[in-house]
Amino acid sequence: MTDQSSDPLVIFTPSGKRGHFPTGTPILTAARQLGVDLDSVCGGRGICSKCQITPSYGEFSKHGVTVRDDALSDWNAVEQRYDDKRGLPKGRRLGCQATVQGDVVIDVPPESQVHRQVVRKAAAARDIIMDPATHLYFVEVDQPDMHEPTGDLERLERALREQWQIDAISADLSLLARLQEVLRKGNWTVTVALHQSHRDETPRLLEIWPGLTEDRIYGLAIDLGSTTIAAHLCDLRNGEVKLSSGVMNPQIRFGEDLMSRVSYAMMNPGGEAEMTQAVRTALNALTDSITTEAEIRPNQILETVFVCNPVMHHLLLGLNPVELGQAPFALVTSEAMSLPARDLDLTAMNPNAQVYLLPCIAGHVGADAAAVTLAEAPDKSEDLVLVVDVGTNAEIQLGNKSRVLACSSPTGPAFEGAQISSGQRAAPGAIERIEINPETKEPRFRVIGSDLWSDEEGFDLAIATTGITGICGSGIIEAVAEMRMAGLLDSRGLIGSAEQTGTPRSVPEGRTHAYLIHDASAEGGPKIMVTQGDIRAIQLAKSALYAGARLLMDEMGVDKVDRVVLAGAFGAHISTKHAMVLGMIPDAPLDKVTSAGNAAGTGARIALCNVGARREIETTVRKITKVETAIEPKFQEHFVNANAIPHATDPFPELAKVVTLPDLDFNTGGGGAGGGRRRRRRG
Amino acid sequence: MTDQSSDPLVIFTPSGKRGHFPTGTPILTAARQLGVDLDSVCGGRGICSKCQITPSYGEFSKHGVTVRDDALSDWNAVEQRYDDKRGLPKGRRLGCQATVQGDVVIDVPPESQVHRQVVRKAAAARDIIMDPATHLYFVEVDQPDMHEPTGDLERLERALREQWQIDAISADLSLLARLQEVLRKGNWTVTVALHQSHRDETPRLLEIWPGLTEDRIYGLAIDLGSTTIAAHLCDLRNGEVKLSSGVMNPQIRFGEDLMSRVSYAMMNPGGEAEMTQAVRTALNALTDSITTEAEIRPNQILETVFVCNPVMHHLLLGLNPVELGQAPFALVTSEAMSLPARDLDLTAMNPNAQVYLLPCIAGHVGADAAAVTLAEAPDKSEDLVLVVDVGTNAEIQLGNKSRVLACSSPTGPAFEGAQISSGQRAAPGAIERIEINPETKEPRFRVIGSDLWSDEEGFDLAIATTGITGICGSGIIEAVAEMRMAGLLDSRGLIGSAEQTGTPRSVPEGRTHAYLIHDASAEGGPKIMVTQGDIRAIQLAKSALYAGARLLMDEMGVDKVDRVVLAGAFGAHISTKHAMVLGMIPDAPLDKVTSAGNAAGTGARIALCNVGARREIETTVRKITKVETAIEPKFQEHFVNANAIPHATDPFPELAKVVTLPDLDFNTGGGGAGGGRRRRRRG
Repeated sequence: MTDQSSDPLVIFTPSGKRGHFPTGTPILTAARQLGVDLDSVCGGRGICSKCQITPSYGEFSKHGVTVRDDALSDWNAVEQRYDDKRGLPKGRRLGCQATVQGDVVIDVPPESQVHRQVVRKAAAARDIIMDPATHLYFVEVDQPDMHEPTGDLERLERALREQWQIDAISADLSLLARLQEVLRKGNWTVTVALHQSHRDETPRLLEIWPGLTEDRIYGLAIDLGSTTIAAHLCDLRNGEVKLSSGVMNPQIRFGEDLMSRVSYAMMNPGGEAEMTQAVRTALNALTDSITTEAEIRPNQILETVFVCNPVMHHLLLGLNPVELGQAPFALVTSEAMSLPARDLDLTAMNPNAQVYLLPCIAGHVGADAAAVTLAEAPDKSEDLVLVVDVGTNAEIQLGNKSRVLACSSPTGPAFEGAQISSGQRAAPGAIERIEINPETKEPRFRVIGSDLWSDEEGFDLAIATTGITGICGSGIIEAVAEMRMAGLLDSRGLIGSAEQTGTPRSVPEGRTHAYLIHDASAEGGPKIMVTQGDIRAIQLAKSALYAGARLLMDEMGVDKVDRVVLAGAFGAHISTKHAMVLGMIPDAPLDKVTSAGNAAGTGARIALCNVGARREIETTVRKITKVETAIEPKFQEHFVNANAIPHATDPFPELAKVVTLPDLDFNTGGGGAGGGRRRRRRG
Repeated sequence: MTDQSSDPLVIFTPSGKRGHFPTGTPILTAARQLGVDLDSVCGGRGICSKCQITPSYGEFSKHGVTVRDDALSDWNAVEQRYDDKRGLPKGRRLGCQATVQGDVVIDVPPESQVHRQVVRKAAAARDIIMDPATHLYFVEVDQPDMHEPTGDLERLERALREQWQIDAISADLSLLARLQEVLRKGNWTVTVALHQSHRDETPRLLEIWPGLTEDRIYGLAIDLGSTTIAAHLCDLRNGEVKLSSGVMNPQIRFGEDLMSRVSYAMMNPGGEAEMTQAVRTALNALTDSITTEAEIRPNQILETVFVCNPVMHHLLLGLNPVELGQAPFALVTSEAMSLPARDLDLTAMNPNAQVYLLPCIAGHVGADAAAVTLAEAPDKSEDLVLVVDVGTNAEIQLGNKSRVLACSSPTGPAFEGAQISSGQRAAPGAIERIEINPETKEPRFRVIGSDLWSDEEGFDLAIATTGITGICGSGIIEAVAEMRMAGLLDSRGLIGSAEQTGTPRSVPEGRTHAYLIHDASAEGGPKIMVTQGDIRAIQLAKSALYAGARLLMDEMGVDKVDRVVLAGAFGAHISTKHAMVLGMIPDAPLDKVTSAGNAAGTGARIALCNVGARREIETTVRKITKVETAIEPKFQEHFVNANAIPHATDPFPELAKVVTLPDLDFNTGGGGAGGGRRRRRRG
């Protein structure tokens, strides 16, 4: 195979790999010998069509070859049959059928590569290269012979050894129970799905089909949050997200936040089992709706990756979370876990599906944070990055390639629209964007389901079906920040009266005031407003978030960060500008504050599609320094100090108008006094 | 540690291992460094007392040392406390407490050895050396620390690594769910049971106890036969059989023999599941009765080894056995299997108990035959040995260290007392031995439960509670052989009439005759006799057995064997002399025919107690040549030829009187004619 050989030269693109091969060598064989990434499920039998290649003809001065028209063997009967039956794109050949006849340049199209790259947005912090734990293999199995009485499983293993160099497999009883029937139905040919997450692990049989299956196989990447459960159905061949879906976490009825669920388990014997059952039932219902909508059979789901916080992690696994409710917050186990779906009663997918849970970082920093680490890779960052994943708890990471710190901060569910008077989860009808004119104090907004603003023509028609139903998490953040910028709110978070603000939208609400965004009560619709209680809930949440970030900065010994990444279920929708006005995050240049969307979900997808990423994150989490907010006195200090809604600072020249409002101080008793009282209190 | 050292010399007996150790070295430490087999569960903390040793004092000219009274450190407080609490035998010290002070000779008593030998009868073909897959380890686990947030499991693993050099473990969710509570209950000390069947396998956590447990751990060795299920409860520390128990296999209601059960599965959709459920229920009931009788908790049973024929193997595992009912008799899997008890719904033992099934040799030669191979080791025999395991099927092996052949022969359940008019299983009240006086034709017999013969004084009193209820397998074999020797039966197996035999015990039974052994009908008791149908059943069974053995001899190219080993559930009770009169087995010198008792059960015990034996048999079965009786025309030929009950031959001078009976030929129509008719038929 040196260049001196008289054998024809075969050059593969895009890899650039090249070698000399005897005339008559199938292209698939040449590819395998050179380590070129060319797929095949049937092992070169011309029936799976996964090894499609595109030969190029003509002169290639770059490669120093001229490819003649007869550089490959003639189009053969196998290719013709396949083309007749399923159609081969023009110019394509089957790599297992076309043989080398002369110097040739062969292009391997992306869909014929096993380790193809998953197409993602340009903004993605990392590429996903397909290298899933589960692959399909087609094999021809010897028939039983009385004179050499091996079991059907042993003959299947022999076939895998001879045809795929796979040494031995393990198989669950439920598959063994079907093995004989499937082998005979496929006339001694079968397709098997094998799962292997380590090189030194015995591959596990997950599913078996008679003959060459046309079934695609799928995996679920599930972000199991305290409030919502989001799942992506991914094609395990190319990583494509076929469908995404979500449901509320039914455990909410046992407690809105994590600590109230832990309390429920403490107070009610068997309470943890109730919650485990509730979440598993919801997962089954979600999976069921996904398979129905995607029109696939449950058995086609062969993998599931979960990311979740430690409490959800324990409740999913059926482990009592009570130790997580009290110092020292001991996890039962912090390591990554692999187990079959049946062990978690996940009955709406293949019972042999392999479930992978990312490792937990600490008792308060879970597998969801590990998934964010995987997706956003602070451990690989050159500059100092603050990664904030906002959910019912905020997981915060600060670091760069030399060191990463992590903590969790109890923000509560306010950022998800819960515990907010007009709050709701992000669904059609929810206000997600809002602007308040600082002069007129009048709002304009957009609701999920329409791109139009409320003051644009056609808005009413556009929202006719959904209506305006409430405010979601990103909406409430914008609303509070806009209220502050419009002078409706003082720095301590008090809403001014109509007299103080000069707008009738400031309406009395008990002993405090509220800001009325939208009133459809005349038509029997909702009255959507931001109350003083809502402001307080957001203040608590943002203070917790800010204090956590500050704590990590103290630990790191820095006063500022180079960039900020906002992640979270609503991360894609959060307005970075408003988040900074609100003081959710430490100051950073606005163009250095980016939104990463659901980074935990992305991390789950990465772990689903690339088995090496699992090993990587298992190693990475061990190197992360965990900071426990609950026992750091400084956290309380930062928390108290962060309560105010800060004034605009230099990085935001466009907010200069806010700078004119520092003295605004609404007190229920009148302007100005509150500030004085506060100073007295602390004096 | 050379003999030139000035450090004291420590000599261990019985191993003879010796070395020099600095003054102050604990004896346990010295033993470990020398590789002396000295047990310890607590790792040298002076609480488990497993490392008891006996120092010797005085002059040992053989070893060239004189041991002074102060060769070991003084009896210390730890030993005193242990002695007060539980008592140390006189002369014993704790190896972890007593330290070297001078030259010393230390005896390690058998009960302090991990790999002690299990005490067995002298006749046993092989020793059982304790080396079970499951061991107990006591560990002290670090408490959780917020500043180093590892899970409890990871800290347990760290403790095992540091205190026992065990790298990592795997644990089922059900154990993880209990881990935190047990760790805290034991004040951060626990005893764990770890299972490891290969050196390169990750040890599996099977059970966990707070502190140092006093629980013993057990394993079940189960011989799962078509007719009966026999179980031995073995102490996993010393291999002692604490209890043996058995029940009938409830699958009998689906068919007496294996093929009728396979037919049941063929004819009835879901029939195999019914049978699986039936046998698992029986196993649970049996296990339940064993734990109750042995006064242990179900959780203490941590291992189970099954030996069984291929059909029972599949039905136990929930695999459809229909392929085993037709050529080519393909097994689902022939390899050995390991799986948790819960996968087989074995709910009366620890759900994490590890179940091991020996490999099957072929579609008709199962894990029970493999167990016989393990126990009787034909593959290690210098001379040519025929090993016959008699059950509802007979598994026959023929071989020596250069080659072993195996086959299975369908004897039916007659040898187990089933399908015999007065037959019953071997239980108190059953006739197990019988002699018939050739002159008077009068029988004398013994029943299970008494050592007296029926004509001895006190017999009636001895059997007063049990009564005489029927004939068991060994009894019917003796009865038929004795009838032949007493001239009550001709060579074709016909029972003579009272006129022909000269005894009123020959009674009419339809168109044939029966021999009356015992008649208690006057007192409302049973009439125990051997009918012509019984003779036919025994003839069929023994012909099948003989034909199988002959087939293997043909394959091996031999006309005789050096020795014969009779095994089987009733192997211990079978009279070798009578078996040879009957023609069950090929001729061999009578002193070379031995009974091995329940060799399959013994093989199960060996596999339970010694994990190396599992690897050994897995390798051995692959080398055995399987012979399929069902497709060998010669088998039919041998079978037909073996139907007669042969005349006595030279090896049995004591049967010379039988030689006077060659012409005995009872025909229903009269003496002599039958033989003639038979000759005509075959002519």
